[in-house]
Amino acid sequence: MTAARTRWEGRLLVVGTGLIGTSLGLAARAAGADVLLADVDSRRVDLAVSLGAGRPAEDAVGSAAAADLMIIAAPPAAIGPIAEDAIQRDLARTVSHVGSVQTQPQVYLETHGCPVSRFVGSHPIAGRELSGPAHADAGLFQDRPWVVCPTDATAEDATEMVLGLVRACGAQPVLLDAGAHDRLFARLSHVPQLVASALAASLAELAPEGVALAGAGVRDTTRLADSEPEMWAEIAIANAGPVAAGIRAVAEPLLAVAAALEAHDDGHAAVRRLLEGGRTGRALLPGKHGGAPTVLAEVQVVVPDQPGALADLLAAVASERINLEDLRVDHSPEQQVGIAELVVSSAARDALVSALRGAGWTVTSGASTAL
Amino acid sequence: MTAARTRWEGRLLVVGTGLIGTSLGLAARAAGADVLLADVDSRRVDLAVSLGAGRPAEDAVGSAAAADLMIIAAPPAAIGPIAEDAIQRDLARTVSHVGSVQTQPQVYLETHGCPVSRFVGSHPIAGRELSGPAHADAGLFQDRPWVVCPTDATAEDATEMVLGLVRACGAQPVLLDAGAHDRLFARLSHVPQLVASALAASLAELAPEGVALAGAGVRDTTRLADSEPEMWAEIAIANAGPVAAGIRAVAEPLLAVAAALEAHDDGHAAVRRLLEGGRTGRALLPGKHGGAPTVLAEVQVVVPDQPGALADLLAAVASERINLEDLRVDHSPEQQVGIAELVVSSAARDALVSALRGAGWTVTSGASTAL
Repeated sequence: MTAARTRWEGRLLVVGTGLIGTSLGLAARAAGADVLLADVDSRRVDLAVSLGAGRPAEDAVGSAAAADLMIIAAPPAAIGPIAEDAIQRDLARTVSHVGSVQTQPQVYLETHGCPVSRFVGSHPIAGRELSGPAHADAGLFQDRPWVVCPTDATAEDATEMVLGLVRACGAQPVLLDAGAHDRLFARLSHVPQLVASALAASLAELAPEGVALAGAGVRDTTRLADSEPEMWAEIAIANAGPVAAGIRAVAEPLLAVAAALEAHDDGHAAVRRLLEGGRTGRALLPGKHGGAPTVLAEVQVVVPDQPGALADLLAAVASERINLEDLRVDHSPEQQVGIAELVVSSAARDALVSALRGAGWTVTSGASTAL
Repeated sequence: MTAARTRWEGRLLVVGTGLIGTSLGLAARAAGADVLLADVDSRRVDLAVSLGAGRPAEDAVGSAAAADLMIIAAPPAAIGPIAEDAIQRDLARTVSHVGSVQTQPQVYLETHGCPVSRFVGSHPIAGRELSGPAHADAGLFQDRPWVVCPTDATAEDATEMVLGLVRACGAQPVLLDAGAHDRLFARLSHVPQLVASALAASLAELAPEGVALAGAGVRDTTRLADSEPEMWAEIAIANAGPVAAGIRAVAEPLLAVAAALEAHDDGHAAVRRLLEGGRTGRALLPGKHGGAPTVLAEVQVVVPDQPGALADLLAAVASERINLEDLRVDHSPEQQVGIAELVVSSAARDALVSALRGAGWTVTSGASTAL
């Protein structure tokens, strides 16, 4: 069911043994690589080594045996200087990184007069809300997209070297221009992060007993606000132009609606335009498996809060040979009970509702939706 | 596991037989009520009657036998005029509504010189993204909060009448001042809706093949943008002041960050402040069952896309006697495989990961988080 991993038997130097770097070491070793690990914090290297992600780079670097590929898994601002040093010292035949921003390190090298034919930026779409080598896993990249950003100056075999590692990690390579990557991920990732944080920050003014009435809507909309501030501040700074433009594309229409509401002047039309624009944009988001939107139905079921209750429910779903397209669990405040929202194809909805009711489950509602 | 429902054997007049009104009819009939149904669209009354939600109001209204309680389940702007007419014609001993905005109908009646001692606004926190009588269900309000907003002018037994119906529907009554309700739900519901729509609308500028790389973060943050534009436009207009203030509380800090990024002047500190404020606000959101936040751990598992796979996974979790605190399913683009994110208490994490791996599941990562 998962993408086959190819072998990758070269020497890989990973600089930065956080979650991504250590996971990369584990995945590359599983594919057959000789992995060397380096970090400004030697304790993180020790931990990554103890997890089986590779051996310390000091054991090898400086010798004639340079790495075939070096991956820089460091904070955005550090990538350019580390890459420049690596290229000058010829530490690896190809130098890449796994940062969330692509243009900044590329421009750094070019403006510092550093040769860039063997430098290729990349960005695995994996991770989220996780950090530290202790959570590393060889499967982190499995079946996830991994963007690779060669330029006109990039040697073809340098790009191939990176693509080989991407496939060896079980990820799906996607080739993109660095500028296009940064503008795209400003909108898909960096701006949603800042918008979620701004919305969550606005809740801090409310009384706690009021916020206790918050439902799944505001919880979902602010989920990203749990992320690590320092990492995201660095990403926003590194991608400042596209992020600022993306913020304006969200905040300015919102303020126009606020002004219309305050003026009591055609507020309805302004609000409706914003809401309809939102439906249009939302329809562009990938459905399941990145395919076209499908008509799905949502069925809500009351689930007792005890071990096995959700498994019993899903076993009941499976016994009807109905495939779950999505599932989420919502809890009622102050009640030891949850609501499971089962998303199935519309065609399966009625059969599911009657089967569950027949089996004694409380089905509270079900509606059609487009995913 | 669910709240016990009390009996409610009076006569209930429901005006507006959409999802909420029809569900209310079903719930009240289950509690023993004589339910009369009315709607501007007689076909919707017919459908609600056929679903067993009550009998047509024309059969009874106008006779000496007025209702004990009338619930107006109509769009926000219609509530005031319908309530005024009902009070003038003495259609019910107590008049209530189930709108998302409380101040507007109250002010409408007061400014029209209508007696308000037997008028009590209310707002069941249920529904979301669903609409139409066909999706109605007697269990829609089960274990959900239901805000009731009496004023100083409200007769005590009118409030008690509404509270009795709330309990009969299995909901948890919460008493709040109308103004406090509107300011609170501007922040918890109306503004998150508009922010999600504005963020989703900004994606409409992107190329479809780019948006296909969107992950769970932007999908969660924009989920509300699927909602029905007309209903939400009316809600925003009806609660214009608090909604405009709430929009400014989100959009102005965002624009300040955009300006700092554009000026290359202390942008880092500005972005970091916003992100840290987001974590503070997010920490106020209710954890499971409205309780204090607990330290939880997230474990990601690869799940084949076939009937029963998720049930098998949850059965494996349950066999370890581990309680799932939350669960969500994410799909990789272009792959017939999903990632299930299991949220469990941090104490249970390691046992779960090793049990799942022992049972042959691919656990891709696990991290601690606070819910």
